[in-house]
Amino acid sequence: MSSRITSRLAALGITIPVPAAPVASYIPFVRTGQLLFISGQICFEGSKVAVAGKLGGGVSLEDGQRAARICAINLIAQMQAALGDLDRVVKVVKLTGFVASAPSFTDQPKVINGCSDLLVEVFGEAGKHARSAVGVAALPLDAAVEVEAIVEISG
Amino acid sequence: MSSRITSRLAALGITIPVPAAPVASYIPFVRTGQLLFISGQICFEGSKVAVAGKLGGGVSLEDGQRAARICAINLIAQMQAALGDLDRVVKVVKLTGFVASAPSFTDQPKVINGCSDLLVEVFGEAGKHARSAVGVAALPLDAAVEVEAIVEISG
Amino acid sequence: MSSRITSRLAALGITIPVPAAPVASYIPFVRTGQLLFISGQICFEGSKVAVAGKLGGGVSLEDGQRAARICAINLIAQMQAALGDLDRVVKVVKLTGFVASAPSFTDQPKVINGCSDLLVEVFGEAGKHARSAVGVAALPLDAAVEVEAIVEISG
Repeated sequence: MSSRITSRLAALGITIPVPAAPVASYIPFVRTGQLLFISGQICFEGSKVAVAGKLGGGVSLEDGQRAARICAINLIAQMQAALGDLDRVVKVVKLTGFVASAPSFTDQPKVINGCSDLLVEVFGEAGKHARSAVGVAALPLDAAVEVEAIVEISG
Repeated sequence: MSSRITSRLAALGITIPVPAAPVASYIPFVRTGQLLFISGQICFEGSKVAVAGKLGGGVSLEDGQRAARICAINLIAQMQAALGDLDRVVKVVKLTGFVASAPSFTDQPKVINGCSDLLVEVFGEAGKHARSAVGVAALPLDAAVEVEAIVEISG
Repeated sequence: MSSRITSRLAALGITIPVPAAPVASYIPFVRTGQLLFISGQICFEGSKVAVAGKLGGGVSLEDGQRAARICAINLIAQMQAALGDLDRVVKVVKLTGFVASAPSFTDQPKVINGCSDLLVEVFGEAGKHARSAVGVAALPLDAAVEVEAIVEISG
């Protein structure tokens, strides 16, 4: 693979993993028109949750950001699986970032930046997206972060 | 009504209820292009919440799954109201499943399967969707589950 | 500006603020096709959060509704920035309303009505939207309410 985005990933030292299989009765992405809806990706590395627990309840901001960065890598893995060629990503349209949070934790945007920043590093202008970041009571498998995405694609 | 999907519902023994009226200042669905956005449906049966409370806080996994299945039936009721003929459903694109959760509860995917599984039973391949499932602090009217949907339609 | 919607805003005594800059690594809106995705807007007035804290934990229903109304004004400010002319709003398609909630608070729909009602006052039929309203554990900067939107646009 010698695409522009694949080269960029290599330059960043990022290896795209085999995309995570859904943990339940759904599929990882659906295309409709020029939009690709990607299921919520938790911070899986291989077959285990890389960062478990809650922000404000034992998980540090740094670990939360690392979890969000892993979510970005998993989103990219799903884009690769859906599109074959990551150069077909026209625009990352929207992210929703869910941060497992103690009620006192209010730095969700800083956490989800770990995902947003990587997408911009990889895709440049096409990686800049609209976003919401919220603090939820709990996430699947006790993951610290889950991020879903809507992506505009070509072809 | 003798459509394919209506027959399938009958075979499954499912009666589609009168769709729930919104509990506030919004409408139950909006079409834009070929997409139908359906408002979050809670686990209403008739005029009451079928399963109230939180997972991990008194509501069992089984009751949570039952609540999610009721949300699926309510989503189908809204599709029926929007489309007239359920055979116009081309693809269930995306669900977001909100599970009222105590902070210790991390089986949101198993809960929302109660919704996902029914949609696949009813619509087959067209029912397979992208999804996020998250644990929220509380839901309207103390409902245990709320699910919203985006559906691709024809016609 | 003498557009229909601008006149309506003036009649309602609403001044559209300078739109809030994102508090992190994202952009306030992305257009794809005829859809405009607007990032989650919290209840910022000027540079400060107008209503901080949680519903059911010190913030009254009335203050929550006021917070949601401010979110609506901030959404309109982003539409104005994106479109130039608010008459290009064809339809407010979908809102997701996140209410920072103590686990015992279950009136999220009444809170988010503060946002929904204003959008209908301003845009009329075009302002009527699909919606989900959920209670989350915490929001950025301790805001009481955050609302994101998808809008169909012309031109």
